[in-house]
Amino acid sequence: MNPKITTELLKQLRQVMKNPKYVQEPVQAYIVPSGDAHQSEYIAPCDCRRAFISGFDGSAGTAIITEQHAAMWTDGRYFLQAAHQMDNNWTLMKMGLKDTPTQEDWLVSVLPEGSKVGVDPFIIPADQWKRMSKVLRSAGHDLVPVKENLIDTIWTDCPQRPCKPLIMLDLSYTGVSWRDKIVALRSKMAERKVMWFVVTALDEVAWLFNLRGSDVEYNPVFFAYAVIGMNTIRLFIDGDRMMDPAVREHLQLDSTLEPEFKIQVMPYGSILSELQAVGAGLSPKEKVWLSDKASYALTEAIPKAYRYLTPYTPICIAKAVKNASETEGMRRAHIKDAVALCELFNWLEKEVPKGTVTEIIAADKAEEFRSQQKDFVELSFATISSTGPNGAIIHYKPVPETNRMLSVNEIYLLDSGAQYKDGTTDVTRTMHFGTPSAYEKECFTYVLKGHIAVSAAIFPNGTKGHLLDSFARSALWDCGLDYLHGTGHGVGSFLNVHEGPCGISYKTFADEPLEAGMIVSDEPGYYEDGSFGIRIENVVLVIPAETKYNFKNRGSLTFEPLTLVPIQTKMIDVNLLTQKECNWVNDYHQKCREVVGAELERQGRHEALRWLIRETEPLVRVQ
Amino acid sequence: MNPKITTELLKQLRQVMKNPKYVQEPVQAYIVPSGDAHQSEYIAPCDCRRAFISGFDGSAGTAIITEQHAAMWTDGRYFLQAAHQMDNNWTLMKMGLKDTPTQEDWLVSVLPEGSKVGVDPFIIPADQWKRMSKVLRSAGHDLVPVKENLIDTIWTDCPQRPCKPLIMLDLSYTGVSWRDKIVALRSKMAERKVMWFVVTALDEVAWLFNLRGSDVEYNPVFFAYAVIGMNTIRLFIDGDRMMDPAVREHLQLDSTLEPEFKIQVMPYGSILSELQAVGAGLSPKEKVWLSDKASYALTEAIPKAYRYLTPYTPICIAKAVKNASETEGMRRAHIKDAVALCELFNWLEKEVPKGTVTEIIAADKAEEFRSQQKDFVELSFATISSTGPNGAIIHYKPVPETNRMLSVNEIYLLDSGAQYKDGTTDVTRTMHFGTPSAYEKECFTYVLKGHIAVSAAIFPNGTKGHLLDSFARSALWDCGLDYLHGTGHGVGSFLNVHEGPCGISYKTFADEPLEAGMIVSDEPGYYEDGSFGIRIENVVLVIPAETKYNFKNRGSLTFEPLTLVPIQTKMIDVNLLTQKECNWVNDYHQKCREVVGAELERQGRHEALRWLIRETEPLVRVQ
Repeated sequence: MNPKITTELLKQLRQVMKNPKYVQEPVQAYIVPSGDAHQSEYIAPCDCRRAFISGFDGSAGTAIITEQHAAMWTDGRYFLQAAHQMDNNWTLMKMGLKDTPTQEDWLVSVLPEGSKVGVDPFIIPADQWKRMSKVLRSAGHDLVPVKENLIDTIWTDCPQRPCKPLIMLDLSYTGVSWRDKIVALRSKMAERKVMWFVVTALDEVAWLFNLRGSDVEYNPVFFAYAVIGMNTIRLFIDGDRMMDPAVREHLQLDSTLEPEFKIQVMPYGSILSELQAVGAGLSPKEKVWLSDKASYALTEAIPKAYRYLTPYTPICIAKAVKNASETEGMRRAHIKDAVALCELFNWLEKEVPKGTVTEIIAADKAEEFRSQQKDFVELSFATISSTGPNGAIIHYKPVPETNRMLSVNEIYLLDSGAQYKDGTTDVTRTMHFGTPSAYEKECFTYVLKGHIAVSAAIFPNGTKGHLLDSFARSALWDCGLDYLHGTGHGVGSFLNVHEGPCGISYKTFADEPLEAGMIVSDEPGYYEDGSFGIRIENVVLVIPAETKYNFKNRGSLTFEPLTLVPIQTKMIDVNLLTQKECNWVNDYHQKCREVVGAELERQGRHEALRWLIRETEPLVRVQ
Repeated sequence: MNPKITTELLKQLRQVMKNPKYVQEPVQAYIVPSGDAHQSEYIAPCDCRRAFISGFDGSAGTAIITEQHAAMWTDGRYFLQAAHQMDNNWTLMKMGLKDTPTQEDWLVSVLPEGSKVGVDPFIIPADQWKRMSKVLRSAGHDLVPVKENLIDTIWTDCPQRPCKPLIMLDLSYTGVSWRDKIVALRSKMAERKVMWFVVTALDEVAWLFNLRGSDVEYNPVFFAYAVIGMNTIRLFIDGDRMMDPAVREHLQLDSTLEPEFKIQVMPYGSILSELQAVGAGLSPKEKVWLSDKASYALTEAIPKAYRYLTPYTPICIAKAVKNASETEGMRRAHIKDAVALCELFNWLEKEVPKGTVTEIIAADKAEEFRSQQKDFVELSFATISSTGPNGAIIHYKPVPETNRMLSVNEIYLLDSGAQYKDGTTDVTRTMHFGTPSAYEKECFTYVLKGHIAVSAAIFPNGTKGHLLDSFARSALWDCGLDYLHGTGHGVGSFLNVHEGPCGISYKTFADEPLEAGMIVSDEPGYYEDGSFGIRIENVVLVIPAETKYNFKNRGSLTFEPLTLVPIQTKMIDVNLLTQKECNWVNDYHQKCREVVGAELERQGRHEALRWLIRETEPLVRVQ
């Protein structure tokens, strides 16, 4: 991996930082965050501005360029990659290390007195602006919005913003019409006494209108905003996508509708001026609801006294609780996904010993099997196909430089998933195609115990997911082991594979309580640097639990695994399991056999079916 | 319980709220918080201003009096008590219920435009002032400091502020001299580049100078502040306590010391003017370190730009990590405490069947046995002695009106503790003096499983206590049960029985990581309204754990019980325990027998010793 040479680019950027054509006054520093205008986790190529200016293309990082310096803040996952991809113009700021200054503190230490620090107000979230601006101001500097993105002014071959056709989801997939979603949203707005709601997250726009897109890889979303009033609906979207008669029909654009359900379609770029007009026309007590992560530009469009900001929007929360149609879709998607993985693992078992299967070949084969399934759309994230030491790199993605041959001597970790029209999958299995060592089995079994502890946990209604995180670690902790990532994240329904507002992590305290219908992942792991990685991940559905008693009538919840892929019994040290854990594995495998077996049979995949039956033989505990 | 008649008092208060002698401008509302000027949990009678004005004397509550209204905010523990103790002049604001307004919102809804809301700036913590002031200001009102406490102006028979003699603790108790504590504090100050540290919490002053007092019931503290500079030490304390030659000797007041260890003694009431003088004399970059819970008055004495505020002070953190002398003292104190409880339970076993022992008699007897032990000072909190339905009232304290007879038909819960010169104890045992029902045993056993899950937990260094909370609940959750309080709190060393900065609770996310040497309680419970309460509480010491592996060289921690009082085996359904849990109980009882048995023997308490031996017979699990 050669670093990107950025000397010329930085020179150009420093020129536009002083060019009155772009900035009202020269800025002494310019911040280039990772995100897009919707604070998306996955972004389109045209939004990869930080990668363009620095060469560093990891998923998280913020660049700051001053007249003298260029510095990049990123976290532990990316220290090595960033160091490889950036040239000597850049200083790497290792976040999480004790001596690393925050961006604000660093700016204060390097800037001349009374400096202006510029940033694109559409890219920086309002809460971050607030924090940063406060520190800079107290040190005598100013954070200023620069309307034109300065990277775009020097990025001559910047790709076009994607504008792909839309996919309509009918009631059989969504369970609720977009009209009913609007009605429910307005009732939440009425409850909080707000008159307007601004939809800024791409998956929230997609969910609200029962539409999907493909503007961003892995995430079936499209570039759009929406502003919902008590009597109006404005959708900000570009291109001729609204010319498609099917889309017009879906949104009833040409029907004679009650005025409060009539969608006004407006250009994507007009959101700011429209919102400013809304802001200017507000009567006292008319509030506008925005996510506190919405961009500074949109937040500022509403006068402060009129803003109603929450960490999670009502759409985010409604979207997380899947209805019966969505749940059924997720079940179907996971059965199809399991069929593909049974095929894959059966194939790997035969091919790996020949020494011809690399990590990339295995990942491609997984995609091939998935693409044979009905309603397959695309992958839900870049496949993590890793063997031996690569498995210990938690966010690994095989590239030609690192591509390793699978063998009968190493543990193989596959974390992969897909978007089907009926649901989103995300599954990790850790396999050995030869004979695992006692130590590998021991570690695998602790991880499995943690996985089961979460999956089988019973907990009261109203419990937040972070309270379950330690269950996943307890068996590892007992032996002095641990893993340095969270245990689970929310999963969308044919939407983003990572979604809020719930999760299972020692870090998230702002999560919303788990509710029946929510879907999260359960994915503890163990990683031994330089040797191997182990992770066992199922997507699980929150369901009501039957309990002997019912304290304060609160009711209880538990999880039902949606993922139905065998957990390799060869890797399990059965004598480390309790009888209850052993029964859990056997019950789970019985269900895989029945449900996925029937589908393999139906699809005539007899060899994979034989593999499934072999892999789901009950464990027997020797007392 | 008759309510306090407050009509006349409220009339008087409303007059002084307009009296130019006390207020610069009339205030339309006056806030009376619970606390004292040190934000203490337990307060002296002279600080019980909220109880004086309202009649409600629970431990938590805030009164607000306007020209038309008088309202009291308190939490679920006190809804009933507050309703009983307050007359019709008062509106009870039930905190935690959905429809209850916050104090700020309520003020905004009832006040005429442009009102002034008064509060004693010494009683309100700075962080609370900030929050409240912001909301009021945005609604056009003003929060104003009223120097003279308005309750004090009408409280004609207000008790004197206590000023009791001091107790000196020598090195054999404290392990570290006050000089060395000052040196360590100054090195923390240098690390953070602050020049001054203001000690506002009473237990922090006591700990720093290795002094104790008895100004507040149950907490061996005395009214004082301290201001530590890099070269100066100022102690603000009243009375002739500094005339005591032993105190002068302890603090070396008359020695020729290096100037930086010379303590300047000043009147308690001069803290504000002295701090204002410090604030006025600061050079640029000279910061002053305060707790963010320090009073508004003291915080305001330091210009904003010079303040360095943290949720936990370096003293709070240093105090929490007990050294070898303190740990040994705590061990001794817990052995003596166990001797007293063995005596008590042996006595109860004989007396309860006679039908003559009430909750109050049992509590008094517990105090009597404790007071026979060496270095006993006082109780560490009001004894919770509760039988049958009273046990379900979590913060119950027997009073003549509720005093219930102990019997062989009801569960008895005793939560009690003492201050010894060598340590602080806090222990809860739940006993049955007849034959417990299968259901009572079942619930008790789930609570015990939770207690063991925490006590035996192994977790990495750096883990925060709140991550262990769910371990205590898991067995209860499995059956649909739970308890509505945290699992543990920090415990002082001959200091406050509740102390920060660590704890075990689903609520505390601001806790500091657990460290070897910290001491916390482990006290899960189960409460059945109207029937019984169960709680099993030990005080436990955080110690290093030996583990098979050592991930990232982080090291592991676990707990060692300091409390050594038998857990009633009669209440245990042995078949609900795993073998591991059964072994834990047997090992624990073996230790009680050895350690406490030896002390009972030494003290010649042979009957109690026989009781101990009987109560520590090993459990046998029927497979």
